[in-house]
Amino acid sequence: MRAAVIGLGRFGTFWAGMLSREFSVVGTSRRRIPDLPREVRQVPLDEALTSPLVFLTVAISAMPEVLREIAPRLGPGTTVVDTCSVKVFPVRQMQTFLPETTDIIACHPMFGPDSARERTDPLPVILWPVRDNLGRYEWLKDSFQRLNMRTVEMTPEEHDREAAFTQGVTHLVGRLLREMDLEPSDIGTLGYTRLLQVMDQTCNDPVELFRDLQRFNPSTREMRQRFSAALARVEALLEEGDGTDV
Amino acid sequence: MRAAVIGLGRFGTFWAGMLSREFSVVGTSRRRIPDLPREVRQVPLDEALTSPLVFLTVAISAMPEVLREIAPRLGPGTTVVDTCSVKVFPVRQMQTFLPETTDIIACHPMFGPDSARERTDPLPVILWPVRDNLGRYEWLKDSFQRLNMRTVEMTPEEHDREAAFTQGVTHLVGRLLREMDLEPSDIGTLGYTRLLQVMDQTCNDPVELFRDLQRFNPSTREMRQRFSAALARVEALLEEGDGTDV
Repeated sequence: MRAAVIGLGRFGTFWAGMLSREFSVVGTSRRRIPDLPREVRQVPLDEALTSPLVFLTVAISAMPEVLREIAPRLGPGTTVVDTCSVKVFPVRQMQTFLPETTDIIACHPMFGPDSARERTDPLPVILWPVRDNLGRYEWLKDSFQRLNMRTVEMTPEEHDREAAFTQGVTHLVGRLLREMDLEPSDIGTLGYTRLLQVMDQTCNDPVELFRDLQRFNPSTREMRQRFSAALARVEALLEEGDGTDV
Repeated sequence: MRAAVIGLGRFGTFWAGMLSREFSVVGTSRRRIPDLPREVRQVPLDEALTSPLVFLTVAISAMPEVLREIAPRLGPGTTVVDTCSVKVFPVRQMQTFLPETTDIIACHPMFGPDSARERTDPLPVILWPVRDNLGRYEWLKDSFQRLNMRTVEMTPEEHDREAAFTQGVTHLVGRLLREMDLEPSDIGTLGYTRLLQVMDQTCNDPVELFRDLQRFNPSTREMRQRFSAALARVEALLEEGDGTDV
């Protein structure tokens, strides 16, 4: 089956390459992408939108604009699959903008170009059938499993809650450590090496992803509040009886 | 050569076992330790102190008390080697309390029971010859290398600076995440898995180690200030233009 990937940034290019092992993939972007995987053909947006399966790999914050642009050009029999790192917001946007004749599947691959290279276990991907009149949801799950993904079914609300306290806190720590200008050390402990890996990997993603997944996930504010409160409690633990010290 | 290990807590027991591949090791503790490595014999303090090589594996905060206790009982020809996770403070204490006839080597193994099991590369250990009249420093370095350690020479001041921004920040992050009650997740990213490893490993160490290495290292206060300042900058980055959001 033909699949289109709308948005060929760092993740979109990687995703298109990954899908090309199972689908015939075309990709589209406003600028010409020079280093596309060989199996992926860049085409104009209108040509891409004739594919029965349309993956959106655009920034979370760009979803409303992109949906407004593509909605009137989608034929019946299209299934739109987003790949955003938050789910409640884009699902609401897709329900608002996409025509009733278009199916909607919410999808969040919990990996990126870096971690996919390093992990050897099946890559987790979260799926939820928002509107599945054409019955492609189960078939997509099977296709993903053939691509060595492990599918996990979760409502958009459940996803955002759990993602805030897993992926969200990881990106917060990674960005915070980069702000501290931490550097590799000859005397680094194993734990420190792991922190640097988290820092490098999260900061390899565009800063836009970090901002969007903190701002468009309703649970990340609570996560950050709990992070700050935990820091304050740790500080308090250190101040206890401080008078007896050096 | 006979070596004594003073203090058989989690690290001391592990350290005694490790040394026993190269030395004849006796250990001492106020309580009876039931699960010592087979090659390590528990003996009374006075017997332990007759060893030419005496390792101190006690809490940083216990150093003054322990040094006061052992100093009058050390014979000439003894080399005392501490293993504290900070260096300026214990070196000053050893210089203050130990007799002139006792040699002093500052030592910080940058690993523990958990990370030693997981690492396959040589384990880094920091060494500094504070007083080496008996000339055992180079010989100890060689012995450590035969035990698959990689020795790094560093002044106590250099050590504390670098350790605050490597081991110190790692333990701060680990304790903070534990305070947040983070848990394993079915949808955890690779980065999140690494954060949980850091949390579990640092929180396996006694909380006393965490407190001591934050309180007895003069650079950790600055590290924590930079941590908080970095968090504030990241928060500010997220607030920018927040009005345009969902």
